[in-house]
Amino acid sequence: MFSLDEAKRRIGCVKVLLEEKGLDGALFIFPIDVFYFTGTRQNSTLWIPTNDDPMLLVRKSLSRAKEESAVTDVRPFPSSKDFPELFGDQVRKIGFTFDVAPVQQLNFYNKLLVDREFIDISGPYRELRSVKSTFELEQLRSAGSACCDVFATIPEFLKRGMREIDVAAELECRLRKAGSEGYLRMRAFNQELFMGLAVSAGGASYGFFDGAVTGRGLSNATPYGASLELVRENEPILLDYSFVKNGYITDMTRVFVFGSLDSELQRAYEVSLEIQEALQQALKPGAISEELYIMAATMAEQSGLGKNFMGMPGEQAKFVGHGVGLELDELPIIAKGVKATLKEGQTIAIEPKFVIPGKGAIGIENTYVVTAGGGDKITSISDEIMFL
Amino acid sequence: MFSLDEAKRRIGCVKVLLEEKGLDGALFIFPIDVFYFTGTRQNSTLWIPTNDDPMLLVRKSLSRAKEESAVTDVRPFPSSKDFPELFGDQVRKIGFTFDVAPVQQLNFYNKLLVDREFIDISGPYRELRSVKSTFELEQLRSAGSACCDVFATIPEFLKRGMREIDVAAELECRLRKAGSEGYLRMRAFNQELFMGLAVSAGGASYGFFDGAVTGRGLSNATPYGASLELVRENEPILLDYSFVKNGYITDMTRVFVFGSLDSELQRAYEVSLEIQEALQQALKPGAISEELYIMAATMAEQSGLGKNFMGMPGEQAKFVGHGVGLELDELPIIAKGVKATLKEGQTIAIEPKFVIPGKGAIGIENTYVVTAGGGDKITSISDEIMFL
Repeated sequence: MFSLDEAKRRIGCVKVLLEEKGLDGALFIFPIDVFYFTGTRQNSTLWIPTNDDPMLLVRKSLSRAKEESAVTDVRPFPSSKDFPELFGDQVRKIGFTFDVAPVQQLNFYNKLLVDREFIDISGPYRELRSVKSTFELEQLRSAGSACCDVFATIPEFLKRGMREIDVAAELECRLRKAGSEGYLRMRAFNQELFMGLAVSAGGASYGFFDGAVTGRGLSNATPYGASLELVRENEPILLDYSFVKNGYITDMTRVFVFGSLDSELQRAYEVSLEIQEALQQALKPGAISEELYIMAATMAEQSGLGKNFMGMPGEQAKFVGHGVGLELDELPIIAKGVKATLKEGQTIAIEPKFVIPGKGAIGIENTYVVTAGGGDKITSISDEIMFL
Repeated sequence: MFSLDEAKRRIGCVKVLLEEKGLDGALFIFPIDVFYFTGTRQNSTLWIPTNDDPMLLVRKSLSRAKEESAVTDVRPFPSSKDFPELFGDQVRKIGFTFDVAPVQQLNFYNKLLVDREFIDISGPYRELRSVKSTFELEQLRSAGSACCDVFATIPEFLKRGMREIDVAAELECRLRKAGSEGYLRMRAFNQELFMGLAVSAGGASYGFFDGAVTGRGLSNATPYGASLELVRENEPILLDYSFVKNGYITDMTRVFVFGSLDSELQRAYEVSLEIQEALQQALKPGAISEELYIMAATMAEQSGLGKNFMGMPGEQAKFVGHGVGLELDELPIIAKGVKATLKEGQTIAIEPKFVIPGKGAIGIENTYVVTAGGGDKITSISDEIMFL
């Protein structure tokens, strides 16, 4: 499990970052950020001073945080009066994650620590987290393998005429029994997802979700994923699901068909595989995100399916891959306008997909590790459409 | 479904609030807040001017927002250049939800709308939402009834020796098939939950979750709910689950036992029912939250189980009930220090529970509507422990 060495390495990396930015330390208040450095996700605030040892201030549960935390200085969250004393007068500039911290939280800490400057470190902190350690890659491989084992059972329960929601429920049940923690963390404001998407031809729809495929969902309040649409003969049912293990998320998509597939969809699927193949070979340290996206979009364009690439025509997502880790939407994003350079050890879900209105959503998704030899696939069951 | 009249009434209520606070309007950016006023949860920002018609600015999906929104003025999210023109120069003070809006979001809107003052309206806005309309009560009753139907099937699949996670997976599968939208919204920073909790004697644990019962969970990254612990003979298995329908959440708990129950647990359960009965009678307009909590805590104290009330000894939750609606943690909270007056039409989950280390968690939970005749139970199956 999460070791003291792992915590030290991560804290060491963020200290270098704080030093570079001229900050005296950083306050992490977002649960999964606290978990990343300490191994506990109890309700607590982590203070990492640039030149001293970290300190975990716990609201609840103190006993469980003490059991779980690799950071050894674990204390009850202090009173407003005692709080400032923990920070020396020499602490002037404090890193904070403005991307996820609510305004009330910043105001709260601002009031406790008067005359300090709070500075947004979300961007560089997320970059740091994008490169996975050996330990993290083990977690991700284990999640990927478990997800594949469950996907392999889909032909046992998937039947023609089922409602999307029944397919989703059966798959989710098996993912949970295989140990998936269920709750899927996303960092971006305004995004959310429940385990994954089961989308038939009738369910392929426009949606807020920042992905190629959304699904209609069960209501306008939860407008994504499975709906009451039926899985019909000669139409694709696309299953895009996550697996969460020790907090680490892998992401994969496979397509199932009863009967045969329309030739345009079949062609779109072949193009998905070609794009995936090209991207897999290109997932090497030094590659530029945007260039990979342009390569994929150009291949889609040249196949005549440009307007269907990565979403419903007119409302397409502008990416073809995204980092995964403790959150579903980690860096890097393989997208238009992103000049980032890929690094060894990043983990990226590559998902070339097409949506053809009236016919359905189709495509592939696998999670890869960036290596010198190209993307190393960690969701390694067959990519082929399963005809049932 | 969500009607134009319903939207008008809700927008009318918030306008009265804005008027009282001397604000020129409010910007709602949090998805479920946008949904509350418009009936759509697409990625969008809602501007409600105090003295004019509201306007929905949509990032994605514009086509779906147009289909779903009861607010008729739906536009694509404008460029930074065009944004300020939508707001007259007379707009100076803008309401904003500081409880859920990340700092980056406030900074973004602050930059677009220079020299305006953004003022936190989270508190009064949440109060407003706590009182449910006839339409909302219909949604909640429907969710409550569906949840009860699924709970009635538990004896069909619950077997001695099952792992908590298998019980959870089977129950979650049935809730999903019955139409639960799954994703459980919580508003409080740092809280999260996946559908509900399946907690055996071995799984009763300390935890960050702001409730009486937490469960160990599958890992330190997701330290709540079902774990790999087994459901054993003569021990309680507590099932605390939500049902989400059209976004509306009901919350209930029942206890199941194979064999017989330890007399201390049996006694604790009887006290839970007595507290629930007393609270149900007291859930009338005009009752004071804190007084209800004190009544419940006093009854627990007098029964000799004070230190086990609402959590593990030493880390007990300081409430006995919470509002439910579009979020699991709505107002009012029936808690120590809360002087709020109950109002007709509020919906409250009442959950007197006890945790006895080594023996397990036990108690009851039902969702009630506040009425002149006391709490009207909407999760109306038997409260009795089910002995199997």
